[in-house]
Amino acid sequence: MPAGNGTIKNVLIWDSGRDEACWGDIVVNDGRISGVTKPNEGGGEIIYDGRGRCLALPGLINAHTHVSMALLRGIGEELPLMEWLHKKIFPAEDKLTANNIRSGADLAMLEMTAAGVTGFIDMYCFMDEVAESVLQSGLRAALCRGIIGDDEVRIAENLSLAERYNGRDERITVQLGPHAPYTVPIECVKRIAALAKERDLGIHFHWLEARGELDWFSNEAKMEPAAYLEETGLLEARELVLAHSVWHPVEQLKTITRGNVTVSHNPKSNMKLGSGYAPLAEYLGAGVQVALGTDGAASNNRLDLWDEMRFAALIHKGHRLDPTLAGARDVLKMATVNGARAMGFTDTGLIMPGYRADVIVVDMDNPRYVGCDASSVPEFVVYAGSSRDVKATVVAGRVLYMDGEFQFLDAEKIIARASEDRLGL
Amino acid sequence: MPAGNGTIKNVLIWDSGRDEACWGDIVVNDGRISGVTKPNEGGGEIIYDGRGRCLALPGLINAHTHVSMALLRGIGEELPLMEWLHKKIFPAEDKLTANNIRSGADLAMLEMTAAGVTGFIDMYCFMDEVAESVLQSGLRAALCRGIIGDDEVRIAENLSLAERYNGRDERITVQLGPHAPYTVPIECVKRIAALAKERDLGIHFHWLEARGELDWFSNEAKMEPAAYLEETGLLEARELVLAHSVWHPVEQLKTITRGNVTVSHNPKSNMKLGSGYAPLAEYLGAGVQVALGTDGAASNNRLDLWDEMRFAALIHKGHRLDPTLAGARDVLKMATVNGARAMGFTDTGLIMPGYRADVIVVDMDNPRYVGCDASSVPEFVVYAGSSRDVKATVVAGRVLYMDGEFQFLDAEKIIARASEDRLGL
Repeated sequence: MPAGNGTIKNVLIWDSGRDEACWGDIVVNDGRISGVTKPNEGGGEIIYDGRGRCLALPGLINAHTHVSMALLRGIGEELPLMEWLHKKIFPAEDKLTANNIRSGADLAMLEMTAAGVTGFIDMYCFMDEVAESVLQSGLRAALCRGIIGDDEVRIAENLSLAERYNGRDERITVQLGPHAPYTVPIECVKRIAALAKERDLGIHFHWLEARGELDWFSNEAKMEPAAYLEETGLLEARELVLAHSVWHPVEQLKTITRGNVTVSHNPKSNMKLGSGYAPLAEYLGAGVQVALGTDGAASNNRLDLWDEMRFAALIHKGHRLDPTLAGARDVLKMATVNGARAMGFTDTGLIMPGYRADVIVVDMDNPRYVGCDASSVPEFVVYAGSSRDVKATVVAGRVLYMDGEFQFLDAEKIIARASEDRLGL
Repeated sequence: MPAGNGTIKNVLIWDSGRDEACWGDIVVNDGRISGVTKPNEGGGEIIYDGRGRCLALPGLINAHTHVSMALLRGIGEELPLMEWLHKKIFPAEDKLTANNIRSGADLAMLEMTAAGVTGFIDMYCFMDEVAESVLQSGLRAALCRGIIGDDEVRIAENLSLAERYNGRDERITVQLGPHAPYTVPIECVKRIAALAKERDLGIHFHWLEARGELDWFSNEAKMEPAAYLEETGLLEARELVLAHSVWHPVEQLKTITRGNVTVSHNPKSNMKLGSGYAPLAEYLGAGVQVALGTDGAASNNRLDLWDEMRFAALIHKGHRLDPTLAGARDVLKMATVNGARAMGFTDTGLIMPGYRADVIVVDMDNPRYVGCDASSVPEFVVYAGSSRDVKATVVAGRVLYMDGEFQFLDAEKIIARASEDRLGL
């Protein structure tokens, strides 16, 4: 796919870097933002014309998911975590073929593209299928093969995924995917961390999702979580994504405030599985970089960052009885630029010259945005907005979705195939 | 408006009464459901054809709101409750004219109709304007004039609202609206309760929203909340809607399990203002009738019951670390039939012969519903659905909204007028 050129015209542009919005045009050259002009002065081919009625935001990033689980949505509702995993999810996953993985991934590409998600961070199996789905869709992704146990085969699969896809298309980055502390022996985690450092790869890791995992640290590892991160070498990875991190001890935050570590906060999945509340106020207070993720569709059940923003902004206020916590401006950064950093990008997630042109256009011409102006964009987006209002999803200057239509995906075919595949699970 | 006749064809019909779904047609006669047939056997005029790809649900009920506050959306974000009220909301409300009330109400009618809300319970001022907006929109509402202090003028306004609108159109019911225990002297509450009993009216009351209100009961009223409800006579009203009820003591639940009392749970507003978590698990366990409300758009900031269902279903699981709490089936009943009961209807909120034909049609032909079948409707609706998928909103058999278009509302004009009015606030 050639990168896009042209102009997103006459939109109210949110700039997280400057924490303000202005009306203008976003000019794109060769997939990157080359400038922001006054409205209708951008010139060139029109990518999308907002006609003075639309917002432009950086594309939303789903910083922890398992896209192919879109095929498992609705399997095993309202069960305790271990029953959900062992009685429902693992048996269904055992049946998944490479074709199923592609079906589920394609379904997720449809859902995310239409919701204004421009990039995601994924861990699962048959990841070549996921990579091909990403290439087809036009989205951006950081992918890894999930590694459970001391499994040389899976490590080799993860490394060969990196060899095949890293550098092939700038839209795919391959990270390494040790599953979690309690599922991968510490010596193996150390080996993976060393491989990541040697090959300059990022790492995507499940981290302290459920309270019981703290017992594993005291009883099995016999060390503190922060010490584990230090000792394994995980902190040396190009970037480290700690998915969930509901139970990271708040007195051990210094270790995870380094620039290459991101906590991927997954509020809805953590509610649905009864895992609890990540200490978001403490994370933000300590300067931890926090992004937002949905987790898989079996534990959410949407791949919708708008939902995730709203939960992140509201639940902590309710939990701590403090309406000043988790402000909309922080939450919008979590869903955009922080997610992009977790993918390993330092030039994605802001609408600024030099940045990749991953931008979404959002309709403001509806009852929910009456009163929104240049001073109140994040608050309207987070508290009043939803994916319903996404008019266009643009990645690297290419339109992937516009006014309900997909550019590169055949929605009817994908839904029909997934529906058939789902019957066998 | 004449009541509707015809058939909603070929839809997967959710029946809360039987807790199951089946494919069929819903036949409507004179605004009521006269029968449910096999698919494409309903005959008569087609109200909506689901073509085997849509769900039919009872219309959603917003069981506590202040619709005209749609004009105040975004005013005073992320402030502590008292600062929010006294520095932002009260000063803005002081400026509201009757015209503004109509603008805000019209805006809310647009938003709710497009989100599949068919009825709502409201307390505010200039309620004639709200009533006229309701009559215009085609929605159903239970309205009251909010009474603060020992205010004979407002009581008289509420009573004259009842005289003007009760019995005029079956879509409007007038209740009495004492604001809250701490804002209305107990003798006045008793008088209002006596008036309600005498005139066979329901009562809509704010109840224990913030923790501090418990202090009022111990320090000022010097009685327990349950005793207050008994002593004032509020429990004798035709129906009693207790809005919020975040802090009702769980050892005093018996008093509010009577058939004519409904707790209107407002999870998003309670999060946003930092009020806390209503003990939903205890309410459901004790058999309290619970409905769902959004509160006003300044503290939510959406009038979207799909959002409210999802928050209600997820936050309590996270709060109590228990994924089995607040199941989707209970939550869907809260958002439909229980809300209808709180409005005072015993023949609304189910898709059954004899019930009012308040029905919404929801698109399942999208990635989020792959895997949904007759056995899993509530789970898909609550966890994966959203107002984005609402294809048609039908009240008393009349289509109010279909495929993005409003039948009785001029969206462009309403948004333009509200946008202008908002500038003055």
